[in-house]
Amino acid sequence: MPAYKAPLRDIRFVLHELLDDSKLTVLPGYAEATPELVDSVLDAAASFCEEQLVPLNRPGDEIGSQLANGVVTTPPGFKEAYKAFAEGGWISLASDPEYGGQGLPKLVSFAVEEIICSANLSFGMFPGLSNGAYNALALHGSDELKSFYLPKLTTGEWSGTMCLTEPQCGTDLGLVRTKAEPQSDGSFKITGNKIFISAGEHDLTDNILHLVLARLPDAPAGTRGISLFLVPKFMPKPDGSLGPRNAVSCIAIEKKMGIHASPTCQIAFDGATGWLVGRPHKGMSAMFTMMNAARLGVGVQGLGIAEAAYQGARDYAKQRLQGRAPQGAQAPDKPADPIIVHSDIRRMLLTIRSKTEAARALALWVGQELDISLKHPDPAARAAADDLVALLTPIVKAALTDLGFEAANLGMQVWGGHGYIRDNGMEQFSRDARITQIYEGTNGIQALDLVGRKLGLSMGRLLRRFFHPVGAFIETSMAEPAMGEFVLPLAKCFARLQQATAFVAETGMKDPEAAAAVAPDYLKLFSYAVFAYLWARMAKIALAKQSGEEAEFYKAKLACARFYLERILPEHSANFAIIMTGKGALAGMPAEAF
Amino acid sequence: MPAYKAPLRDIRFVLHELLDDSKLTVLPGYAEATPELVDSVLDAAASFCEEQLVPLNRPGDEIGSQLANGVVTTPPGFKEAYKAFAEGGWISLASDPEYGGQGLPKLVSFAVEEIICSANLSFGMFPGLSNGAYNALALHGSDELKSFYLPKLTTGEWSGTMCLTEPQCGTDLGLVRTKAEPQSDGSFKITGNKIFISAGEHDLTDNILHLVLARLPDAPAGTRGISLFLVPKFMPKPDGSLGPRNAVSCIAIEKKMGIHASPTCQIAFDGATGWLVGRPHKGMSAMFTMMNAARLGVGVQGLGIAEAAYQGARDYAKQRLQGRAPQGAQAPDKPADPIIVHSDIRRMLLTIRSKTEAARALALWVGQELDISLKHPDPAARAAADDLVALLTPIVKAALTDLGFEAANLGMQVWGGHGYIRDNGMEQFSRDARITQIYEGTNGIQALDLVGRKLGLSMGRLLRRFFHPVGAFIETSMAEPAMGEFVLPLAKCFARLQQATAFVAETGMKDPEAAAAVAPDYLKLFSYAVFAYLWARMAKIALAKQSGEEAEFYKAKLACARFYLERILPEHSANFAIIMTGKGALAGMPAEAF
Repeated sequence: MPAYKAPLRDIRFVLHELLDDSKLTVLPGYAEATPELVDSVLDAAASFCEEQLVPLNRPGDEIGSQLANGVVTTPPGFKEAYKAFAEGGWISLASDPEYGGQGLPKLVSFAVEEIICSANLSFGMFPGLSNGAYNALALHGSDELKSFYLPKLTTGEWSGTMCLTEPQCGTDLGLVRTKAEPQSDGSFKITGNKIFISAGEHDLTDNILHLVLARLPDAPAGTRGISLFLVPKFMPKPDGSLGPRNAVSCIAIEKKMGIHASPTCQIAFDGATGWLVGRPHKGMSAMFTMMNAARLGVGVQGLGIAEAAYQGARDYAKQRLQGRAPQGAQAPDKPADPIIVHSDIRRMLLTIRSKTEAARALALWVGQELDISLKHPDPAARAAADDLVALLTPIVKAALTDLGFEAANLGMQVWGGHGYIRDNGMEQFSRDARITQIYEGTNGIQALDLVGRKLGLSMGRLLRRFFHPVGAFIETSMAEPAMGEFVLPLAKCFARLQQATAFVAETGMKDPEAAAAVAPDYLKLFSYAVFAYLWARMAKIALAKQSGEEAEFYKAKLACARFYLERILPEHSANFAIIMTGKGALAGMPAEAF
Repeated sequence: MPAYKAPLRDIRFVLHELLDDSKLTVLPGYAEATPELVDSVLDAAASFCEEQLVPLNRPGDEIGSQLANGVVTTPPGFKEAYKAFAEGGWISLASDPEYGGQGLPKLVSFAVEEIICSANLSFGMFPGLSNGAYNALALHGSDELKSFYLPKLTTGEWSGTMCLTEPQCGTDLGLVRTKAEPQSDGSFKITGNKIFISAGEHDLTDNILHLVLARLPDAPAGTRGISLFLVPKFMPKPDGSLGPRNAVSCIAIEKKMGIHASPTCQIAFDGATGWLVGRPHKGMSAMFTMMNAARLGVGVQGLGIAEAAYQGARDYAKQRLQGRAPQGAQAPDKPADPIIVHSDIRRMLLTIRSKTEAARALALWVGQELDISLKHPDPAARAAADDLVALLTPIVKAALTDLGFEAANLGMQVWGGHGYIRDNGMEQFSRDARITQIYEGTNGIQALDLVGRKLGLSMGRLLRRFFHPVGAFIETSMAEPAMGEFVLPLAKCFARLQQATAFVAETGMKDPEAAAAVAPDYLKLFSYAVFAYLWARMAKIALAKQSGEEAEFYKAKLACARFYLERILPEHSANFAIIMTGKGALAGMPAEAF
């Protein structure tokens, strides 16, 4: 099993040096979230995850969650770890103190989630789903529902799910068939079968709150006729203790490629009692609250896997002796050199690392903007931050999960044949990471979200939230000679992004199919520009600190920046070229010829 | 489980139309291998694999090969299928009739291997290893060894292995520790532990012939002191019946990410009796005979997985209803359109298909050149073909296995969440394909082979075997207006390959580390040029046949050509740009900073 230490120094670099998180303390409710407090929270999270969650990761994969007689048993140790996790307040880190939460910024919870996902992705699914349910209820639930249910989620006594998918509908939620019949007492009877329900049934909590998409009898067809319901596994009594079992049952769990410890359930609702969350037929927008938070969370999962894969590969590369460096023996006293001398090994490690550090900067940047969007006293500042989060959400989801899978496979490749052996733990990262590119909207759907929704919104208003600061940064930095090597590649990529954006926007107005055809490449090009921008900003900070006591840290930062900008960023030229071909060859083959 | 039908029409296109395999009938021994005979062999192979091997693939993955008390049991059905496979003569398709083989061209066996690997990669490992052993013995064994052992391999009564890897050595075989002590009767006592031995122990054959790398007492250090030995599991009696068990045992099998039905064994040799194959200390060159054949075979594995993934994804995309086409409903009578209307689905399918058809053309082209290299009466023709095979072997291995894994993951992505479920069979392709990028020399090693060995050999003689015909093809085709859209992209890529080749060759002479640093990108650039060349050639054939009775086939071929050249080929520009940066940023980070 690869060792893992939370990358606290790099997280602190992003939080305190790149993002200056101290400015969050001026936001209402965040006064106490000083960098010092944040550091101590991160230290504690690191200890917990390294000590409690990492050791459960391999056995969790081998044993998996098991279903017998309708009861799901999580792998040994999960129940105890979950209890300690809840008691440590980790579930409610960014929840509202009014409902028992810690009230810390989302930014901090993003950093902690990365660590959890590096340590044990399957474990992280449980609190992740609870947080999604918490957010949906907190934003769309009635005061009655909120005051009753939210405290149970923040303590971790109860957990949550998102029940969207059905056998005939995944991406296309307009096809949802589950029915909700109004009852005289204001409740609803929910009937239907849901699939792919993560944490849909398990033994970690006393109760499970299902947030279920269903149709009311008078619902219009398609997505405009979907409502959101809260359906508890056990009917709670008014005092919060558990009443009778609701008509909700787990009829199967899926055998999957990875995340074996996370039970993926088929849940049957047989006239189960539920309550409406939000307004009738407005379930899609409530669902998007969960979904957008979940998409950012899934992006962070990719980041977590990437970091874990990096550490596993790096440790092996330093210790495995094989062959000699082309320039001559580097460890002449040993039978062979450590494989880190080989350029292909270095290339793979630096690819993971340079992308992972930029990905971390992106995730935490979006986390900070999320806090501003929720808490800033100035509505214009809130709106601006909200725009940026909306724009970057599909990029975080797609780019970071693609990275997670790529990193896992590069990490495995560093291990050679030993990476393919289950006990060594590297191949699990690949199997676990693979789902993140699929769930919460496939990465193809993220590209359509970016091109189809975000690009054109309010005449490109969202885009300007990114384009303006990047343009300004390039202009300022161009004047600094030392920044040339970092800012020129960014400027080239950014110019192409602007050109491609104009092309895609124009094309999309005439022919939505043509815009869709280049959407995946457009998302990739955009991601390269985002990463390049963050690397240039990080390089700027590091340039100024090369002679201090942490000189080695900043020099490594600059080496990674150079690697990314020189050896990774050129890949964007292919995406640019492909975008500019339009739909062309993609439309040239009739469906029956496939 | 995804359905699979061997792509016989496309294989015939490559064999008869692109490669004109009828010209092989002039080679000694191949007179009977007419296109008609080849077609009937392929028909029979398709039936066998579709009916016998496909149904064993999913259960083989779930059950796996199991070790108990030193005995390995293959999954249910494997033994019967192997018997039928051997009786059908499939193992000995390209073996020498002198030893009971069918004597068909390698070209034909390559086509059949693709079909086997699509149907059941794990199953294909067993005959694949036997063929490797056959080749090593046929080329390096004494007449006595050959006449005794080869007939047992061609009938499939006995099987073979390649015992190279040890715990401390994989890529770096100079570190082999296994010992061989000469005995007075001319035999040797072999002692040592080997790992990662595919088909090292199983219940499919009566005996197993291990080809083992070991050191003689007087061996020089490193790879110059390695010899090759034949070590049977059971000592054969002079009449070919089985004598006593040799001191060879399987002490463990690995739990792996994929190819579960193929037992990956730890084999202990405890003073086992063996015989020298080839000359003392010349084991590495004999081993490379096995290895080069195995590398081509592994490339074909990648091709097989890619085709299977394509078919699985295509069938699902035509049947799964979800969402509507951006240009409006295409199946208005249904609740949603089949997902093949969505551009991202088409993009993924066309990516797999356009790469797979080029990959098939490449594999079979190399197969044909292999036949010429072995059989042509003119030594110059043999040498020229041998050069081309040597040049293209690392490209076949790396490009086709990268394709196999990419195709498997794209195919899974087409299935969305359902692709992640084991029973649906798509994720198995990803897990099975992943090892092909690692074994028989990681793809990073292939790049070093291309740049470090093949590029510089005899002042670029090998390169010219590819560059000259491509240059001539471009010149001829440029004159044909209809070929412009196909040949211009090729010409652009080829010009960059020539420029990059000059740069890498020059750099490599001054600084081998710098050449190594760009080797993976150079191999990729080379692969794009090879695929583009083959697509342009295939387009030329298809252009002339658009009005015949198979017009749809040729039109689809042209659509794929256009897709590849327009939407995939531009990726080479990134590799070119990265190559031209030299080692730069790759060397900028000291090992301790990782």
